[in-house]
Amino acid sequence: MESITVKSSKRNELIDINHEVEDIVSKSGIKEGICNIYAPHATCGIIINENYDPNICLDIVDLLKEYVPQGKWRHDRIDNNADAHIKAAIVGPSETIPISKGRLVMGRWQSIMLADFDGPRERKIVVNIIKS
Amino acid sequence: MESITVKSSKRNELIDINHEVEDIVSKSGIKEGICNIYAPHATCGIIINENYDPNICLDIVDLLKEYVPQGKWRHDRIDNNADAHIKAAIVGPSETIPISKGRLVMGRWQSIMLADFDGPRERKIVVNIIKS
Amino acid sequence: MESITVKSSKRNELIDINHEVEDIVSKSGIKEGICNIYAPHATCGIIINENYDPNICLDIVDLLKEYVPQGKWRHDRIDNNADAHIKAAIVGPSETIPISKGRLVMGRWQSIMLADFDGPRERKIVVNIIKS
Repeated sequence: MESITVKSSKRNELIDINHEVEDIVSKSGIKEGICNIYAPHATCGIIINENYDPNICLDIVDLLKEYVPQGKWRHDRIDNNADAHIKAAIVGPSETIPISKGRLVMGRWQSIMLADFDGPRERKIVVNIIKS
Repeated sequence: MESITVKSSKRNELIDINHEVEDIVSKSGIKEGICNIYAPHATCGIIINENYDPNICLDIVDLLKEYVPQGKWRHDRIDNNADAHIKAAIVGPSETIPISKGRLVMGRWQSIMLADFDGPRERKIVVNIIKS
Repeated sequence: MESITVKSSKRNELIDINHEVEDIVSKSGIKEGICNIYAPHATCGIIINENYDPNICLDIVDLLKEYVPQGKWRHDRIDNNADAHIKAAIVGPSETIPISKGRLVMGRWQSIMLADFDGPRERKIVVNIIKS
């Protein structure tokens, strides 16, 4: 098990961790298998999408902010971050990606991103590689 | 392969299965790997989020009920549960969690929950552990 | 690692790949484990739900089209498919399903589907089987 640490700088932010995950895959020496990426936080998720045009990350955040506004939920009476929990629940904390010839098998426009919905904070992502 | 059986008591309900999954991991004797949790139902999903304040589960259900109302879909002409299928499709039936030192590597505020969108029913969840 | 190729005929379309995935599981000879299905595209996702009434697939597409309309996003200034990226990000590119006795452990009403949000196109799905 390996882990990656990132720091978000906004409340809602997608942070690219593609190079860090590729490094872990490469150092593992495993040529064929799967790579599980897991965010051990109840207000974060893992999103795989395009980051070449960074506007896509902003568009995804905009959609989630529009439909999951802050301040109108039961949990907001205790801790004003119910929206972050709901977004994290919908997005989900895990994705699993195939590995072939020692590399992640991803589309040209796919990047792995930590989605923080309750930043700015320091966040950990756990990466596990399983041989096939 | 192990399985967990739960009974929902409402149409839309999140049921904590964290202790049951932890027990399966512990009994497996596997120290390092991943744990796949799968809901073999087309009107259920797996959600990982906070359950310490149970209001978060109600907030997640509220959001899904607000945007996916009952009764306005094509499938409702055949079986009045299209909303449950749509919610299940968005949430997804599987999550995969890392295992280290014989335990699930989860955040302090994360719990594994079966999300039933067409209860009350008896539901099964399938748990598979893979050694790394 | 095996792969499946499908052709979508509409912009938003769910395409059943259940038989193709079952064939890969069967030919692998692996009796117990997990099967990871991955869409290496930034405008596709993997959805597991009912396909016996094909209206459910249309209902899922309708919901996503209603809440993620085309043409109002930042990325649309560069490439008019921001909605497809957002839908793919929410649905997610991977699902992982248990295998027991040489078969996928799925519910009676569950089918594996590629969700194309930017068709019509030829799309690839990658399938990996891991022994437990």
